[in-house]
Amino acid sequence: MKTLLIISHPDLIDSGSQQYFLNSIKNQEDITIHHLENLYPDGRINVMKEQDLLKRHDRIIFQFPFYWYSGTPLLKKWQDEVLGEGFGYGTRKKPLAGKEFGLVMMIGVAEREYQAGGEELFTISELTKPFQAMANKLGMIYLRPLSIFQFFYMEEEEKMNTLIKYWQMLTMEKDISLATREKWLIQQLQKMTESTTELNTITFAIERIQENRDKIDELKMVLDDMFLE
Amino acid sequence: MKTLLIISHPDLIDSGSQQYFLNSIKNQEDITIHHLENLYPDGRINVMKEQDLLKRHDRIIFQFPFYWYSGTPLLKKWQDEVLGEGFGYGTRKKPLAGKEFGLVMMIGVAEREYQAGGEELFTISELTKPFQAMANKLGMIYLRPLSIFQFFYMEEEEKMNTLIKYWQMLTMEKDISLATREKWLIQQLQKMTESTTELNTITFAIERIQENRDKIDELKMVLDDMFLE
Repeated sequence: MKTLLIISHPDLIDSGSQQYFLNSIKNQEDITIHHLENLYPDGRINVMKEQDLLKRHDRIIFQFPFYWYSGTPLLKKWQDEVLGEGFGYGTRKKPLAGKEFGLVMMIGVAEREYQAGGEELFTISELTKPFQAMANKLGMIYLRPLSIFQFFYMEEEEKMNTLIKYWQMLTMEKDISLATREKWLIQQLQKMTESTTELNTITFAIERIQENRDKIDELKMVLDDMFLE
Repeated sequence: MKTLLIISHPDLIDSGSQQYFLNSIKNQEDITIHHLENLYPDGRINVMKEQDLLKRHDRIIFQFPFYWYSGTPLLKKWQDEVLGEGFGYGTRKKPLAGKEFGLVMMIGVAEREYQAGGEELFTISELTKPFQAMANKLGMIYLRPLSIFQFFYMEEEEKMNTLIKYWQMLTMEKDISLATREKWLIQQLQKMTESTTELNTITFAIERIQENRDKIDELKMVLDDMFLE
């Protein structure tokens, strides 16, 4: 599975949270990192090149800071120009149909405010309807989004948990079975052992697998006991 | 009441529907027409000037083509920069609190497609939640939007009806009583008689008032009959 990660951020270099996530996915051959502001500093988008790139990937991710409950100006320009008539819509063949589409959003306000009665009034599911409608129009499969709330207030363990969810968003096949997730995690660990900078994360991940496995074993023992009685 | 009409359209001159509406509101002293692409062709927004302009108006309208279920790139840039921390949010005093906020959207697809089971899947109320959330954050009063569906397929009478709704959006006080609406319509007609180019519209509007008045008179007669028996 090939993933196209389309990042849009007006000031990516200075964004600590963006850098944290980007540093963790360097040199992964199945992920194409595509930073719009860097590629098109003057805003002139190479539409043909972008359309071609979309065709060559199976999963498309938009990653952006969730300012004013929406994408960035350049991401919107990209949508309007690249997903134009004859490509995005208005044609019988839909070139993106069947591909997966997902959002990774950095959000400055706490999760609890995104509901009726909260400061932000609406849920993330409600506020991202324009993106859901876009995926619908293009015939794409809308993935469960990754909303990263107040990254800088997170404890180290929560940050690592989020990092694993991020990698799953970028590389794990859409399948909720535990077997798939275990397989995916082992693959990730194998890749990591090739580099040496990610040792903390590896230790953390191994502990999590161990923990999960222990729980499953406990459950099995309880079940065995029940049937023996 | 002073209205600030913020228009954003990548190609306003060539848009027939935009021109139709703009031509009808020339030289109205209570409406400030503010076309972003024209003012800021290089995208560099004068934030202080914009904030000052907002403060001096009572009703703020965003007018744009509803591409990909959202505003335009430059409108989003305007939101991100002008409604920044210390003005739009993150401060105790909310400079825009109590002002009115409305949307005028030109939409290329038929209204019936905007619902569950329709091609576009969601309603306009669902898709515009990011703007509703913005008004909520700023303490502004969100007006019923004006969604103009498939303007070019409209019959002449429907276009004129839409034009009247447009003027109401820009100039009529928020009040649903018939008396207010009649008063507003008469004011508009008085303004128009000062110019001579709008004769068709005047005739049409007068007919509508007459029609409404006839209906009210009929209703009164029915009520009178009921109480006499």
